[in-house]
Formats: sequence, structure tokens, C-alpha cells
Amino acid sequence: MTSTTAPRTPPTTSTAASGISSGAPTVADVGPAVVLGANQYGKAEVRLVRVTRDSARHEIEDLTVTTQLRGEALADSYLVGDNAKVVATDTQKNTVYAFARDGVGAPEDFLTRLADHFTGEFDWITGGRFGALAHSWGRIVTDASGETSEGGVGHDHAFVRGGTETRTALVVVDGDRRWVVAGLEDLTVLKSTGSEFHGFPRDRYTTLVETDDRILATSVTARWRYTDETVEAARTPGAVDFDALYERVRAVLLATFADVHSLALQQTLYAMGRRAIEEVDAVAEVRFSMPNKHHFLVDLAPFGLDNPGEVFYAADRPYGLIDGAVIRAGVAEAPAAWDAVTPFV
Amino acid sequence: MTSTTAPRTPPTTSTAASGISSGAPTVADVGPAVVLGANQYGKAEVRLVRVTRDSARHEIEDLTVTTQLRGEALADSYLVGDNAKVVATDTQKNTVYAFARDGVGAPEDFLTRLADHFTGEFDWITGGRFGALAHSWGRIVTDASGETSEGGVGHDHAFVRGGTETRTALVVVDGDRRWVVAGLEDLTVLKSTGSEFHGFPRDRYTTLVETDDRILATSVTARWRYTDETVEAARTPGAVDFDALYERVRAVLLATFADVHSLALQQTLYAMGRRAIEEVDAVAEVRFSMPNKHHFLVDLAPFGLDNPGEVFYAADRPYGLIDGAVIRAGVAEAPAAWDAVTPFV
Amino acid sequence: MTSTTAPRTPPTTSTAASGISSGAPTVADVGPAVVLGANQYGKAEVRLVRVTRDSARHEIEDLTVTTQLRGEALADSYLVGDNAKVVATDTQKNTVYAFARDGVGAPEDFLTRLADHFTGEFDWITGGRFGALAHSWGRIVTDASGETSEGGVGHDHAFVRGGTETRTALVVVDGDRRWVVAGLEDLTVLKSTGSEFHGFPRDRYTTLVETDDRILATSVTARWRYTDETVEAARTPGAVDFDALYERVRAVLLATFADVHSLALQQTLYAMGRRAIEEVDAVAEVRFSMPNKHHFLVDLAPFGLDNPGEVFYAADRPYGLIDGAVIRAGVAEAPAAWDAVTPFV
Amino acid sequence: MTSTTAPRTPPTTSTAASGISSGAPTVADVGPAVVLGANQYGKAEVRLVRVTRDSARHEIEDLTVTTQLRGEALADSYLVGDNAKVVATDTQKNTVYAFARDGVGAPEDFLTRLADHFTGEFDWITGGRFGALAHSWGRIVTDASGETSEGGVGHDHAFVRGGTETRTALVVVDGDRRWVVAGLEDLTVLKSTGSEFHGFPRDRYTTLVETDDRILATSVTARWRYTDETVEAARTPGAVDFDALYERVRAVLLATFADVHSLALQQTLYAMGRRAIEEVDAVAEVRFSMPNKHHFLVDLAPFGLDNPGEVFYAADRPYGLIDGAVIRAGVAEAPAAWDAVTPFV
Repeated sequence: MTSTTAPRTPPTTSTAASGISSGAPTVADVGPAVVLGANQYGKAEVRLVRVTRDSARHEIEDLTVTTQLRGEALADSYLVGDNAKVVATDTQKNTVYAFARDGVGAPEDFLTRLADHFTGEFDWITGGRFGALAHSWGRIVTDASGETSEGGVGHDHAFVRGGTETRTALVVVDGDRRWVVAGLEDLTVLKSTGSEFHGFPRDRYTTLVETDDRILATSVTARWRYTDETVEAARTPGAVDFDALYERVRAVLLATFADVHSLALQQTLYAMGRRAIEEVDAVAEVRFSMPNKHHFLVDLAPFGLDNPGEVFYAADRPYGLIDGAVIRAGVAEAPAAWDAVTPFV
Repeated sequence: MTSTTAPRTPPTTSTAASGISSGAPTVADVGPAVVLGANQYGKAEVRLVRVTRDSARHEIEDLTVTTQLRGEALADSYLVGDNAKVVATDTQKNTVYAFARDGVGAPEDFLTRLADHFTGEFDWITGGRFGALAHSWGRIVTDASGETSEGGVGHDHAFVRGGTETRTALVVVDGDRRWVVAGLEDLTVLKSTGSEFHGFPRDRYTTLVETDDRILATSVTARWRYTDETVEAARTPGAVDFDALYERVRAVLLATFADVHSLALQQTLYAMGRRAIEEVDAVAEVRFSMPNKHHFLVDLAPFGLDNPGEVFYAADRPYGLIDGAVIRAGVAEAPAAWDAVTPFV
Repeated sequence: MTSTTAPRTPPTTSTAASGISSGAPTVADVGPAVVLGANQYGKAEVRLVRVTRDSARHEIEDLTVTTQLRGEALADSYLVGDNAKVVATDTQKNTVYAFARDGVGAPEDFLTRLADHFTGEFDWITGGRFGALAHSWGRIVTDASGETSEGGVGHDHAFVRGGTETRTALVVVDGDRRWVVAGLEDLTVLKSTGSEFHGFPRDRYTTLVETDDRILATSVTARWRYTDETVEAARTPGAVDFDALYERVRAVLLATFADVHSLALQQTLYAMGRRAIEEVDAVAEVRFSMPNKHHFLVDLAPFGLDNPGEVFYAADRPYGLIDGAVIRAGVAEAPAAWDAVTPFV
Repeated sequence: MTSTTAPRTPPTTSTAASGISSGAPTVADVGPAVVLGANQYGKAEVRLVRVTRDSARHEIEDLTVTTQLRGEALADSYLVGDNAKVVATDTQKNTVYAFARDGVGAPEDFLTRLADHFTGEFDWITGGRFGALAHSWGRIVTDASGETSEGGVGHDHAFVRGGTETRTALVVVDGDRRWVVAGLEDLTVLKSTGSEFHGFPRDRYTTLVETDDRILATSVTARWRYTDETVEAARTPGAVDFDALYERVRAVLLATFADVHSLALQQTLYAMGRRAIEEVDAVAEVRFSMPNKHHFLVDLAPFGLDNPGEVFYAADRPYGLIDGAVIRAGVAEAPAAWDAVTPFV
């Protein structure tokens, strides 16, 4: 977690202003100097459903939005409970809903509008993190033809929640700098063959048997940061199609998982990232966290049965956990963006 | 919860056999006679993944299986800790995996095989509940054409987890009687119009405003019991295609949700059940539990904006909860089946 | 699920009134007669926090309340979307909050007040289920002495959430009849010795090794129904102390789990129920659902180490699942009460 | 996420070695150079229960352990699927269980032993993250006195799971450097008074009413890093009592939450951190993430009732989210430690 807020020492005198109940020692009294470090605050998980009903064929957008603001001037809310610069989190929520009145669009664009608003409207708000989960819906198909009065497929105003994965979007602002990180979570995939694992070192605690054919299964968490050029271009409305970019990266990740003959989940991870960068120019780097969801071949020999790779026990815990970043050579690092991707602590 | 186990009074003498630490009072000493009521035991949530690899184009089946056995002779395990009749839950788990070696097929068929085994192999096991959740997987499509070497669509051995809903199956056995209950959970659907709610009574505590256009959203939990004729026919392997029945009922439920202009979620629920019974002969009755997932129109007037049914706050709790059963006229009631659908307590 | 609502056939003529979009077949047209079975509707999970601030020493009560109403007259909401008898779920929520203004008290008493209101205020509401989860809070202790200005222990108005288990309460009404079922969930307990498991039958699929010393761990779900006499007595305000009864039963369950030398989890379950009935006169019957949370002794032999019952792997799934009811001899059965304990479907 | 692994370009030639199915383009063929960034791998959520049974009075320790290893030599597993340096995650799991044979003790000490082992046994493992959740258990009290044969309170070998919060521990190693971060999660606290919120700026989207008395509730996530001196001292077994430090910090956090008259949750957060640093010398810095769990006063006026701060609706989402770090003046920053606290991505 990085912040533009330089550590700041609290005032060491006014007990009353500190809000500490009477009798509590002030910093000056008792000892070590203490400073405020990185900080941010906002409203989390604003559930927004937007219906576009310009015609009989409705569109639906479903986001869970989180905004968190940063700025040096916010320190006094921490230090002495002075809220003069604290844009209330309730106000942030209201703003999300009000902005949705003008439409949502790609989550990255919607978050950018919010970011521009908060940093523009309040001069002491110098940055923040603006994130969203996008929940997918498809149209219910009500008959074999799927035809509707508009000629499209599926019902005009009846929808069913889509697949298990969730699309994520994050816009991070620090003064004049900004980053856009897209991603997905809970994309669960499995290969029933085409995966080996052998050649690993053996020590006193190693009992794992080598295998040249196993199930490989994981639940992909991926985040990819767009290049500075892409982020810059996106300042022109409509110049970057973040929805299309998302679909392309998702498709590449899936196809690569399927196509790579895997010698290690690490290798699959890297190949997925490499391919995404190779095929989508807008991607600067990709980070993955991928559990190795173990499927253990059940020993059926005690029951007089063989088990040629057919019957598996899918274990919950423990699981392997493979993390890795794949980076386009030459792009500048962006630690402030990645810090904002994960929880504060 | 019903069981064939008649209430049975425990022995009132042997302290030692009761397993109560010395000094604990026996029933005879202290007072009220106490009897054992309904009971069952087994192994829950056996995670089974079955790969069929007869050709290069693999098939995958993914079930979470629970077996629970019943029988009067099991009472002694409760009363005095005598396990002579207790088929270990570990054995039940092993049996699930061993039976999967011969293939799985429709969950209802697999559960029936397990039920037949346990009640046939152990003459004191006179019934039980045999349930499964079926998790869906689709093939990963790796290119635009989606063509594979086998000519089908999607990858031969790479899969992605399917939609959000889970298919359920339950076989209940009580002596010679048996019931089959199919179902689905977490099928989340939404209509962006075509839903009204008005005409309800008003009392001192009523503040709700009537509406003739609202979002209607729910997460459908549905269970349908198949007719006795269907269950009987299914004793002949291959005579009943439970997978096809599931798909038909699911499609009817979705289409009806979409098509019904709703005056109340109750009405939608009933229409869904009625249509399923009308269109699928094998269905004897359907039960639903459907939360009314409220989407509140956000008041944007304080911000100088109108909101003509476009911006909504999707609330988590509380929610409406609408339950109802829809029954084919003339079918016999089956309380033992429905008791087994829900948790014991 | 039982209801006083007799199955009722829907009208077979009015397409318009049925709310089905034009073109949909009416029952009369297409075939099987369909009837409405058991049903109920209401508001679920109303989150209520009540602060009593009569003095500087506050009290806090924290409930999640669900009300569901029943009555024959409600059928028309299902059959034709006629809401004339539908007490809006929003009204039910408002009523919960309004009633809390006068205090909460034991959850069973609060639910009874709600039940009396709904069945009394609306003559067509002939019954329902009224349930609550009670979340526990303790006072924060701010210094070694724990003394406060009021002389009690802990802070006057600062609280910390209590243990992992949740207290449950349910009042079920059917015309003049009523039942009260108390309970608890997620009470996780473990014995590190004093548990054996052997003497079970062995078949082709049995591989489990017998043991005379294992870890026994479970997460207790228990519900106990109070006797009709207790429920009757409770009509006089203050005559029954449901909070004290809860504490006594909970203490007996815990102590019995600890004291019983276990030969099977079934035996422990039965002993817990028996002791509760023996020691608490107000308890008519107890139902349990108890997972056997397996702790497997890790085989350390490959690493040259023994493992005399010290190092265990705590597995998630599968788990044993032991269900059982323990009944005071001579009490009348109450299926309508138990049906209402579990989800509708 | 920081790693000692310098970005490394994959080989650009060997298609076969890359494990990509034939036909896939190599890096050299298609375009952008791609490098591997930060990475780590290991076994997550190893469920370990350790019983110490030296006497009739057993002790129980319950941890969920995650180990993840780092080192430049691991790059080849990502780049080409070469596992020669990959200590299998299964081996890591075995090591956790084997090490538990010698006892567990404070989680920080146990994790340090694991860290020393992996970095010592395998010279190419130059660092990693070693984390644990510690689940608390208390003894079941079986009678009023609570006395046992050993004279202590509670049962010798029967336990009940403790409160809702979870203790966390993390040891991070990077070559010769190491950090220890302790923490807690899900510590839910509430003040029924002594909290105000006013003085915040108002803009077009502000509707929140100022208040001088509200409920303040949060679920504390806190992590505190121990000073380098403490970590260094801990290299001598027994020299640092991490269990006692945890208890002291936890007590200070609770007491400060209770004692501070709050003008903003930010202020409470800062005061909690400041007090922890002031009172516990071993603490270098504290980070918090604290949701503002809103409790809305219910408007009972429509029902003719007042509501003087007594009846509240506890909302789920959205919630405020207040993050902040509090740092002892003069201590060196430790970004590598904090990166390892949060998920990789």
C-alpha cells in the first residue's frame, strides 16, 4: 500500500481535540512519537443495478462499486477526528448512484468518471482507488428459436445470472498519474489430461509420486494492467473499448490453459500471461494467483478394481498456491497500482 | 423428518455399557423415560470427479454425494454405542468411489445404484437418503470455429465450470417404497419490467408504496418429485432419461419466469410449478422457495435528477421469502420424500 | 412442510386474471388439474439491533428475525396474483422494528408477540412461522479490574461479539395451536481423547481401521421443543424464563459431550439429548444434526517419526453426518413444529 | 508484491521445451519480449491440529498454515516447466506435519522454524512467506466449580471453539532479512454511544445528516509488525513470548476502541494504533482495515413512535471502509513485509 500521504506526526498537546476520553495520556506525555502512514477511506460494495430501457429490449448492468479517497488533508480525521475534509462515505455512495443515471458502460470508464469527479470536485482529494466487480447476466431464452420481437436472441427483459467468474476493474489515481487494472476471479478450469508433474527434488519429507498424467484444475484469479498508452488514450471517450479488451484477454487465458501441455501449473500460468501480452497490445503486465486444486486418484485396489485415471477425489484443503507476474519487457513498474489491487492489510 | 424407526426406549440398567462416565445417573435412577426418535447417519459431501476417457474426447462428471442410512437395528449405536450394525461412514465413502468406477450417468441413477446396494447388502439397512449436487462443466472453446479433431465443439479435455446454479438429486428409500426428487438451487433470475405489486392491505405499519412497474429478481430453489410411475419405470436401466427431464423442467421454469407478467412473486412461483406439471408428465409436484431480492429505485431527486426505473440499489437483507408447493391433482402425498429433502434439523 | 391450507385448484378460465401473458394456455385448455399445496410467505433476515439505554450502562440485543405467514385466504396471491390478503413483507419488517420499540427480551417472547399480532390483526392469517437468530455480545473489559462506575464488570457501552455459536428460536402457530422450538448452531466442540470407534461390520468396501483412541469433533446443531405445558405457561408474561432455559440446556449439552466416554458419535448425541430431557423439565424433545469432523492421525513413519496421537490433519470434506431425535416418553408428536424448523425445500 | 527474483526473459527458441502444443508461436516468432516478474509458490491452508498429551490434562493447538517459497532458481518452472528446483507443495505439507511432532508453540516460532528449514535445506530457496491462522479453543466447564483433577479450570480433554476472531501470524524471509507480522481478523466490536459524526463537507450529492450520537461498529482487521530488535531477539528460543505480545496488543486495541470518544472511525483507528505502539515496545507499526458497519436508526414516526437511539437496522452493504497505518517514528519501512501480508493479487 502506497500513498501520497507523507507520514505525519499528530499534535502532541490538545487532549480534548484528540477525542481521547479524559485521563488518556497525550503523545507528548507518554513516549514514543507515532506517525500516521498510508491511509484511505471510502464506501465499499455499493450494489448498483442499472437498467437501460430506451427500447422494449432492455439492457442490464450490475456492479458492486468501491471508492476510496486519499489526500494529505485527510490526516486530521485520523489524528484529531476533524472531518472538515472528509467527503462522507454516504456522499460517495450517492455519487455512484447519481452518476449511473447518465449510464454506466465499461466499468473502467465508469470508475474513471468517478475518479475524475472526486479529484476534481475536492481539491484536497489527490487520489484514490476506484474498483468494481461486474456481475454478468444473459437473456433467458424462452423458446427453441430464441427469436424475439426485436429479432435478437433471448427475452427482451428477462435475464439469468451468468457464469461463476466475476470481472473486476480498478482505476488508481495518484495526482496526475493513473492506472487501470482489469481482471477476473473464480474462473474455474480443469484439464482431464495433458498435465504432468515430475522431476522435482526429493528430501526426507518427500513422499509424492511422480506422474505423467494427472488432472490439472485451478480457479484463476488474474489481473492485468493496461499500458500507459492505453490509459492515456482512454481519456478520449470511446477511444478504448475496455469490454472488448476484457473479452479478448479472457478468451486467450482460457485457450492457453486448454492448449498448453502442462509440466507444472507454474508453466501454465506463465504461458497464459505471455500469450495475453503477445496477443493484446494494450496489456502491460498480468498477475496471477492460481490454486492447484488437487484431484487425487482414488486407490480402488482394496476393492479389486483398477483405476486408470477415471475416479478422483476432489480435495478442498490444502491446495497448492502458485503466484506469478508476467511483464511486457520495457514497461515501467507500477507498484502503486498493484498495491491498490489487494486489500489494504 | 420421518423414519421407519419406531421410538425405542434405551436399556435402563447398564451404566457401563452406556458409555457414560462413572457417576452419571442411569435413566432408571433419575426420572423420565426417554426414547430415541427418527435417526439416520452417513457420509456427507463426498467429492467425486469422474473422467470418462474411452476416446480422446473426454467426458467429466462432478458430484458431491451424501449417503445416510436408516434401520431399526441402528438404534443400539445411539443407545449404547454398539456399532455391530453400523456400516462405517468411511465404508460408505469407499462405496461411492468404487461404484463410480463403473460410470456415473444421471445422478438419480447413480444414487439408485447406491441405495440398492446398501439396502441389499445389509439386511438391517431398510432405507435411507441418497443425495447429490451435480456441478456443471462446459468445454473450453479455443478458437473461433470451436472445431476439434472429433468434429465437436470445444476442447477434447479442457473444461470450464458452468453457470451459477446447482442441480440436485435425491433418492429416498423406505423399505419397498422409494421416491426420486430432482431440483436446482441458486438459479438467479431477474425481470427488468413486467412486474407489479399493489392491492395489498394497509395497516398502521404499512408504508410500502404500490407500484405497477418494478424489478422482480429471485434466486430459485426448486425441487420436483417424479411420479411413482416414473420411479417404477426407472427400475429398468435406461428407461427414464433423468438428464433430459432435468433440462426440460429447467427450461420451463426459466421460460415461465420470463413470460409471466407478474402481479406477485407468489403468482410467478405458482405459474412456474403449474407449467412444469403441465408440460412434463413425469413431474408429480414441485416445491419452491424463492427470495424476493429487492431492487430499490434510488431517489435521485435530491441531486436534481429523475429516475424513470433506471438506477437501483440491490439490497442484501432483509428479503421477501416466498414458499409454495404445486401439486398434480390426484397424486398421493409423499411426506417421507419431502422430509428427506431438507436438513434433519 | 405442513400447512393448514388445503390444496386448492386454481380457476380454470380467466386468462387475463392469471397474469399469464396472452397466448398462454389456461389450465382448462391444456390438461392436468394442478393444485396449490403448502405455502407461506414473509420477510426473512430482518437485522434488528436494540439498545436499552435506561441508564449509563447500556444493554444490547441483536437478532435476525424472519416472519412467514400462512392462511387459506392467501391462495389467491399464488393462483391469480390477487394481493388483497397479502400483508406486505415490507409491513412485516416494519412491524418487527416497531415492536422492538417496546423492548425485545427473550427471542421466544418477542416472536410470540409478533405471532399474536399478525394472527390477531388479520383474521385470515391463521398461522405462521416466526424465527430468530440471536447474536451474542459481551462487554469489553478495559482494565485488569474490569470495574465500572456501576460496579459491574466490563464497559458500560462497548461490546465485543461473542462466541461462534448462534442461538435460535422459533415460534410456530397453526390456529389455536402453537409450539416453541429453541436451539443452537455452530457450537464446535472437540475431545482429544475419550473416544473409540470399533466393532463395525466389514464388507468388501471397508478399509477403516478400528481405534480405541481418536479425536472426536463436531459442530453441534441442536433444536429442542418445549413442552406444551411450558408453552401454555408462557402465555403469562414473565412466567417462563426462556433465556435461563437456553443457558441450562446449552450447559448440559456441553458437559455431556465432555463427560461421555464415546464409543460412537451416535451414542454421544443420544446421551446429550437424554441428559437435557432429564435435567430440564421444560424440554419435550431434542433433535440433533452433528457432523463427525474427522481428524486424521498423520502418518509420520516415512519421516522416521512416530505419532502417538499428537499430530492430526483436520479434514473439511467428506464428513460423517449423524442425525437423531431424543424424545421424552409420552409427549405428543409435533410434526408441524419440526417441519417449520427446516427450510421449506 | 516484491520478490528478490529479478525479471527474467524466457528462452526464445525451444518450442518443445516450452510445453506449448505444436504450432504455438515462440516468443522469438511473434513479438514482444516477455519477462517473469515476482513469483512464489507453496501449499496453502494446511489444517494442523496438535494435541499435547504429556499429562491427563491435554493441550490443543489448531493452525491453518500456508508456506510459499521464493528464489531465482524457481524461474525455470514458470518458463519451461523444469521442476528440478521445485520443492513439491506436497513436501511442504509433509514438513509442516513433521515439524509439529516436536511441538508447535507460538505460531510465529513455528513459522520461523519452517522458514529456517526451507531456506536452509535448499540453498536455492532464498526466501518466502510463512503464514498461519490460529484458531482458539477453550476448555469446556462441566460443573459450577469448574475444578478438575489437576486443580485447573475446565475439562482435561474436552474443548469448545473460542470467539469469532482469528489470530494471524506471518514470517517473511528475503535472504538474510526477516520480518514478523502478527494480527487478528474478524474482531467485531460495537459502541452503543460515544460516537459522533459531523463537520464533513457538503456538496450536491450530500444528504447525510450530522449526528452527535450514533452506534459505531466495526470488524477489526489489524496487523502489527514487530521491531527488528524483537525479530532479532527471537532468534534465541524462548527469548520473545509472542503469545503474550499478542494478548497485550489485542487487549489494548479492545480497550482503546471502548475508551475513545469517537468523532470519526478514522480517529478511533489511529488511537488504537497509537496506543498499541505506546504500550507495547515490540510493535513497530500497525495497519488496520476497518469497515464502518452502519446501524441505521429506524424511523418509527410513521407508526406514531419515537426512537430515541434504541431501534436500529444493521445493514450489510454498502459499508464504510477505513484503512490506515500507524507507525512508530524512526523505524525503517518494510514494504516487503507488507506486500506479503496481502494476497499476491
